[in-house]
Amino acid sequence: MTTIGEFELIEQFFGGQFASYGVNLGIGDDCALLTVPPEKQLAVSIDTLIGGSHFPRNADPELIAERALRVSISDLAAMGADPMWITLALTIPSAESSWLSGFSRGLFRAAEEFNVSLVGGDTTRGPLAITLQVHGSVSPDKSMLRSNARVGDLVFVTGTVGDGAAALAVIKKELEVGKSAFSYFMGRYYTPKILVRQAQALATVSRCAIDVSDGLLADLGHICKASGVGAVIEAERLPLSDPLRKLCDPDTALNWALAGGDDYQLCFTVPPAKIARLEEIQEQHQIEFTAIGEIVRGDECVCLSGGRVVVPEKTGYKHF
Amino acid sequence: MTTIGEFELIEQFFGGQFASYGVNLGIGDDCALLTVPPEKQLAVSIDTLIGGSHFPRNADPELIAERALRVSISDLAAMGADPMWITLALTIPSAESSWLSGFSRGLFRAAEEFNVSLVGGDTTRGPLAITLQVHGSVSPDKSMLRSNARVGDLVFVTGTVGDGAAALAVIKKELEVGKSAFSYFMGRYYTPKILVRQAQALATVSRCAIDVSDGLLADLGHICKASGVGAVIEAERLPLSDPLRKLCDPDTALNWALAGGDDYQLCFTVPPAKIARLEEIQEQHQIEFTAIGEIVRGDECVCLSGGRVVVPEKTGYKHF
Repeated sequence: MTTIGEFELIEQFFGGQFASYGVNLGIGDDCALLTVPPEKQLAVSIDTLIGGSHFPRNADPELIAERALRVSISDLAAMGADPMWITLALTIPSAESSWLSGFSRGLFRAAEEFNVSLVGGDTTRGPLAITLQVHGSVSPDKSMLRSNARVGDLVFVTGTVGDGAAALAVIKKELEVGKSAFSYFMGRYYTPKILVRQAQALATVSRCAIDVSDGLLADLGHICKASGVGAVIEAERLPLSDPLRKLCDPDTALNWALAGGDDYQLCFTVPPAKIARLEEIQEQHQIEFTAIGEIVRGDECVCLSGGRVVVPEKTGYKHF
Repeated sequence: MTTIGEFELIEQFFGGQFASYGVNLGIGDDCALLTVPPEKQLAVSIDTLIGGSHFPRNADPELIAERALRVSISDLAAMGADPMWITLALTIPSAESSWLSGFSRGLFRAAEEFNVSLVGGDTTRGPLAITLQVHGSVSPDKSMLRSNARVGDLVFVTGTVGDGAAALAVIKKELEVGKSAFSYFMGRYYTPKILVRQAQALATVSRCAIDVSDGLLADLGHICKASGVGAVIEAERLPLSDPLRKLCDPDTALNWALAGGDDYQLCFTVPPAKIARLEEIQEQHQIEFTAIGEIVRGDECVCLSGGRVVVPEKTGYKHF
């Protein structure tokens, strides 16, 4: 194991990559200096992943970094924002070259995919933790806020839900699976597809979105709380993947779909008048999504199955 | 000990404070939405403080928060930037109300002093760690970069140096001091004065500055490296506080002044042609600073005492 100093570490593993738009001064000074595109708002989000709690401590560092960045970019996508820059506060028990090398490889691969550059950071010694702040830009009239759901809006979700929770169960070896299912769920967990461009297209008809990270019902609940509305979704309409259906019984699948989280799909609302335009966008941008319910009066967010309310066992990931 | 959930925690301890300029959407959505003032660059810096390593774990949470924000704002000051917004990624072993209450009190007191608002955050459970990102704005022609030192520039430092390291020794009980000295050093450690307005005034004559965090010699070394120059400073000119002189022998004081760090003073360079203007600014803004040396050809950054090179025992805080 080779260990190195902080300045050396930054230079060796986090320096010298390509610069995206608006980076006047990147890593290496007291601050980074950035230019936000004219007429755009700056969108920022900060997230921490703790080793042993948000991801397995001994996981491949390349995958840890890939996932960390993807999960963070998901917040920009849910706002309809265009990713631009990232900063990284990395806490590691020791500066082990092979680990850092893998981590920076994964980080920069994902950074390149989303066309973001690392503009600043801090490395400290301590228990493994990764804090990423993502920075994007968005036009004031194209941002999708949690507070914009209106009674009568239809509720949609992209892709399939429940895979994130299933993947975690697979990784924790709570379930035994074949090689191909294992590979599918590993992919869903470590390299979730983040729908940046798709979200920007949806932002032309939707003013309200959230990414499914705490669990579909909890996240839709955040929308309801912020908008002062209720929501009713239908269990039978929830989009489940084939690998999930094969993995477990229908009740478990439904529970994971509603309360599992870590899916990083977009849950968004669209007023009835814009559904025709939404269908055009779906075709044009090849976006997979499903209508799962409706925004209603009240303050409750419920899932019905055959007319009865489904109460999932765990409603979203709790930090405390 | 009362523990609470994450959403409750954020609402109770980190919601509802005043909003500074440009906050279109603060805490509570996928992203914060911010407007950078026209014609200005966004300046950002991220820093992590680890409990037990960067500050005593059992320290007063109010002081921990005060110090964390001040130390972070120091990076904006060193760039000549105007502080605007902060984001906080807080990792705590448990959501203890009394601790959180103290922490948020200290954070918001300092935030108000610097006129910044908390626009986003993440709270996670794990070993105590505080990551703050600070965001400011600066005109492109008023930023002070490490790379702008030129041969012949004079080197200055504000206030006094060495107190940060002395304070740490006092806090760690490596030295016994009287009540008034204890109080002085506690203040220097937990509530260092951050020279935001002064730095902006200095930025009209200086294009190059850094804050003294790693240690004066190490930080001036960062300037030298970034600018491709050398520097010579004189031990006899270093500004030392009376409490520091009384606390220890002259060699220890010199060593702390050169290599101690945690002073959060500004080290800056000014070309000879602008010294007259600098003196006007000094008087007008009541800024205390001292000329300590000169930028020279070469790549070495040295301190001379009676013509001989002083080699301090510890050159800056090393993370690894």
